[in-house]
Amino acid sequence: MTNLSIGGEKFGTFYGVGVGPGDPELMTVKAQRILRQVPVLCVPKSREEGGSYALGIISHLMEPNRQRLMELVFPMTKDRAKLEEYWDKGLDQLLVPLRAGEDVAFVTEGDPSIYSTFLHMFALMRERHPEIPVEVVPGVSSINASAAAAGMPLVDGAERLAILPATYEGNQLVDVLERFDTVVLLKVHRVMDRVLDVLEKLEMVDRAVYVSRCGSPEQRVVTDVASLRGQDLEYLSLMIVRRRRG
Amino acid sequence: MTNLSIGGEKFGTFYGVGVGPGDPELMTVKAQRILRQVPVLCVPKSREEGGSYALGIISHLMEPNRQRLMELVFPMTKDRAKLEEYWDKGLDQLLVPLRAGEDVAFVTEGDPSIYSTFLHMFALMRERHPEIPVEVVPGVSSINASAAAAGMPLVDGAERLAILPATYEGNQLVDVLERFDTVVLLKVHRVMDRVLDVLEKLEMVDRAVYVSRCGSPEQRVVTDVASLRGQDLEYLSLMIVRRRRG
Repeated sequence: MTNLSIGGEKFGTFYGVGVGPGDPELMTVKAQRILRQVPVLCVPKSREEGGSYALGIISHLMEPNRQRLMELVFPMTKDRAKLEEYWDKGLDQLLVPLRAGEDVAFVTEGDPSIYSTFLHMFALMRERHPEIPVEVVPGVSSINASAAAAGMPLVDGAERLAILPATYEGNQLVDVLERFDTVVLLKVHRVMDRVLDVLEKLEMVDRAVYVSRCGSPEQRVVTDVASLRGQDLEYLSLMIVRRRRG
Repeated sequence: MTNLSIGGEKFGTFYGVGVGPGDPELMTVKAQRILRQVPVLCVPKSREEGGSYALGIISHLMEPNRQRLMELVFPMTKDRAKLEEYWDKGLDQLLVPLRAGEDVAFVTEGDPSIYSTFLHMFALMRERHPEIPVEVVPGVSSINASAAAAGMPLVDGAERLAILPATYEGNQLVDVLERFDTVVLLKVHRVMDRVLDVLEKLEMVDRAVYVSRCGSPEQRVVTDVASLRGQDLEYLSLMIVRRRRG
């Protein structure tokens, strides 16, 4: 690799490592190798005093006497200016070991290309510090793992798949459910009752499966989704809706 | 597990194991464990005399003195009756070890829930032989691995993702490209020139990346997709189109 600066200094590689949905066995061999080999492991968390879900998945691999842990806070907020402030701060912290030639693995649950904090760090790094080599290690997404846990196909033959976050306004959801063979609804916990209204109207309530905390010991697969109405649901949850049966 | 028949006979478990897109390091730890532990490994291939892509990914794990290989042929055809004949034949072959109490791992490249032959075997098994226990082991899909190889996000924030097979008729493709933030086009090799026409019309040709044989030593990432016009392309290829830049 040509990761040498003008002064001949060697930069560390910034790895974005997907570690799967929660079960440490659903990590790839490559993710394990990189997490064991880098001197700095970086995990995101939403609050300074809180824990990191990603750290729980990888903690059994860490060797504290030769690896350092960097915990970066990215608050859950829609305030873009506030978020950018935290991204900038995170980038500065990541640059310290990388400029000293140390590799850093940024751990993301699931797959790094799907709704991950790593995507923001990656975009900033490429824009402002293109001299830092970056490598993305794909992982098993919670979407694929949830389908496996539910024993439900995602797509087959000539079928079409749509993946939507929770913000389905107006008739958007109806429209997508009518045009696609399978629809995956992420962060469904916030809007479950509204989703159930739509599924009932379309007579599709028996075509849906709800999966929460996929791959963890608390994993839950619910086929009677109507029973979820009015319930307090997990943040790490999704729903798969198949137009066709079987 | 209660996998006992009425006569007290114990059935083997039918595993559907996703082994990732091609690089053996992108296999999960769980997939490796199951592939090492079962007595029968089953791989699909499209022709009797041909090779199996899935077998190439796992062959380094096989121990021929204690594991048997079962190669099942599933021809590439759109003739449903002919396909069903092969599925039935495959099911019969799988049932022999399973009924003798031996576990069988059916190997699928990528993830078993996304356009895999395993889905058909799984559906038939559940319908006709519900007494056989089945477990699906998710894997890294070539979609996630291609995004990682291209250094391209799939979805972020409130974005929407659509995954389409090659059969986009009429204005369907235009419609989806206008409504979704990211569109993944599978089996794009067959229809590349037509896709390029659409992308040029929508002025999106610079928002697309083509990835073939992702995760294998022959992996190819092409950002100048216009250069692919008229070329003879790989079967194992896809295109990712992002509405937004960066």
